[in-house]
Amino acid sequence: MEKVMKVALLGFGTVGKGTYRSLTVNAEEITRRTGLRIEVKKILEKKPEAINSGVAPVELFTQDYNEILNDPEIVAVAEILGGREPAATFMLQALAAGKAVVTPNKALVAARYEDFREASEKTGAPFRYEAAVGGAIPVIEVIRHSLWANHFNKIQGIVNGTTNYILTKMDEENMSYEEALRQAQAKGFAEQDPTADVEGIDTANKLCILMLEAWGVYIPPTEIPRVGISGVTKADLEAAAKDHCRIKLIAEAEMLPDGSVKCSVKPTPVPQENPLYGVRNEFNAILLRCNMADDIFLQGRGAGQDPTGSAMASDLIAVCVEKACC
Amino acid sequence: MEKVMKVALLGFGTVGKGTYRSLTVNAEEITRRTGLRIEVKKILEKKPEAINSGVAPVELFTQDYNEILNDPEIVAVAEILGGREPAATFMLQALAAGKAVVTPNKALVAARYEDFREASEKTGAPFRYEAAVGGAIPVIEVIRHSLWANHFNKIQGIVNGTTNYILTKMDEENMSYEEALRQAQAKGFAEQDPTADVEGIDTANKLCILMLEAWGVYIPPTEIPRVGISGVTKADLEAAAKDHCRIKLIAEAEMLPDGSVKCSVKPTPVPQENPLYGVRNEFNAILLRCNMADDIFLQGRGAGQDPTGSAMASDLIAVCVEKACC
Repeated sequence: MEKVMKVALLGFGTVGKGTYRSLTVNAEEITRRTGLRIEVKKILEKKPEAINSGVAPVELFTQDYNEILNDPEIVAVAEILGGREPAATFMLQALAAGKAVVTPNKALVAARYEDFREASEKTGAPFRYEAAVGGAIPVIEVIRHSLWANHFNKIQGIVNGTTNYILTKMDEENMSYEEALRQAQAKGFAEQDPTADVEGIDTANKLCILMLEAWGVYIPPTEIPRVGISGVTKADLEAAAKDHCRIKLIAEAEMLPDGSVKCSVKPTPVPQENPLYGVRNEFNAILLRCNMADDIFLQGRGAGQDPTGSAMASDLIAVCVEKACC
Repeated sequence: MEKVMKVALLGFGTVGKGTYRSLTVNAEEITRRTGLRIEVKKILEKKPEAINSGVAPVELFTQDYNEILNDPEIVAVAEILGGREPAATFMLQALAAGKAVVTPNKALVAARYEDFREASEKTGAPFRYEAAVGGAIPVIEVIRHSLWANHFNKIQGIVNGTTNYILTKMDEENMSYEEALRQAQAKGFAEQDPTADVEGIDTANKLCILMLEAWGVYIPPTEIPRVGISGVTKADLEAAAKDHCRIKLIAEAEMLPDGSVKCSVKPTPVPQENPLYGVRNEFNAILLRCNMADDIFLQGRGAGQDPTGSAMASDLIAVCVEKACC
């Protein structure tokens, strides 16, 4: 018989629902692959529309985090509250209590990585954040494990769907930046205040995490040279097209021969030969230039309920497998 | 101090050298990531040009497999002999002796999967074959672990570099099939007898492995409906181009609603919107259509010394990490 592992979700917005759906819709598949049944025991959420959404049974919901923190049956907590607080405090408390933590919260991971790492090391509770970069794309796992026989010479990524959508619309449908931004907002790809996306702040957070994974080097996102896309004009795109290039918001990091890391986030003309050239609309992609494997290219959905939920669920499964066998 | 884990290589041809190089060139990187030092203790090889290639010290070489099999220090064996025998016997003997086995030998894995799985289960010795499909692309790990919160609706792949190179040359440089094949042979992408590549036999072996990983379903490669590329004409490519398609040798498998799997290997017009459309020359790529993550696309080098060696080394590291912590 399968072993049951219990987890909790903090927050039941879009990604919370996707995480829950991945674990329940694919429960049989997960059991076939791992021998485990992963059960969401509690969900911290107070918004009535989330509680009554019909996605999860109402009896799972609580408004008291202590019910989760003090429940010895719960081995892992998925932080999906967003923002800084109380997310950070809740995560640190969970790690201190020996519970694994998984999160898609790139801004928080990038800003306070050291705190979480220390808390995780102190109790041995795993801390994972696959969903923080590239949504459904398993780029963290691929860097950390699948390509661990490699040194990464360079990493290039399109890791913000909003800006890639805007640039694609400007390029293919001849829209102005303002028109494309409005369409992205209408489609739900851009926030009402789009600053974090269009100014490259979100991309810098993700690049910070990629550099940590690739080289164990922590460069705070605030120290990453950064230019957003709000200054990109149709004339820029046309000039790039003449050179068989497309302008993309590229997160780039390179390890130099002296062991230092050079990094930037900026609109960059990408030539046709680079697979990032073909990444359109809200898709994300990462190109890993490795010293043995050569170029490895990953593409997928960088956002959305089920795609991001799938990456969160993947991390929850990993920590449950780890807990179950130890 | 780092823990030392000892492994052996069976064969020191192209992939053997790449495996050795990945483990030695990146030794520091591997230790930083895993805390282990992975040492190649012995290499089974009799060809003087391999022994004296300068890639590995001559004192590592032996011509007696028993020296490896009976060495309790050696925890893992990389089979890189190719062909059926003695590779299969050596692998089964290693697994029976409790040694992990890793191999890039797709034909052998596809033909005798059940034997290896049984031998592996009997002693608990890991059996891995990341390098068998897609060369450097970590597609096995991504299917098996990174996307384990997903059900795979469909898998499509370009998993044979030779045929993709030939089709690219026919398409872009207006070569005939015969001319393109000759160029592939001259460049070392195609064997003197190209049958296994151009008739899709190699592709069918890889599709067999992908279906095993995705669904746990074993369909022998001989039962996969298969059409090669030797009948593809310039007229076919031109007709496809008129529909904004390119003809690629596509390995495809789909799980139908009744739980059965439909699969094929055949030249297929791939539309522009499919990321496989842009996969050129000897590159490989796999498109995983998942029920939660949506489309995940992986691209990289499907062959070559260091790329394939990197995947072999990745598996060796994984089994050493597993052995070291148990």
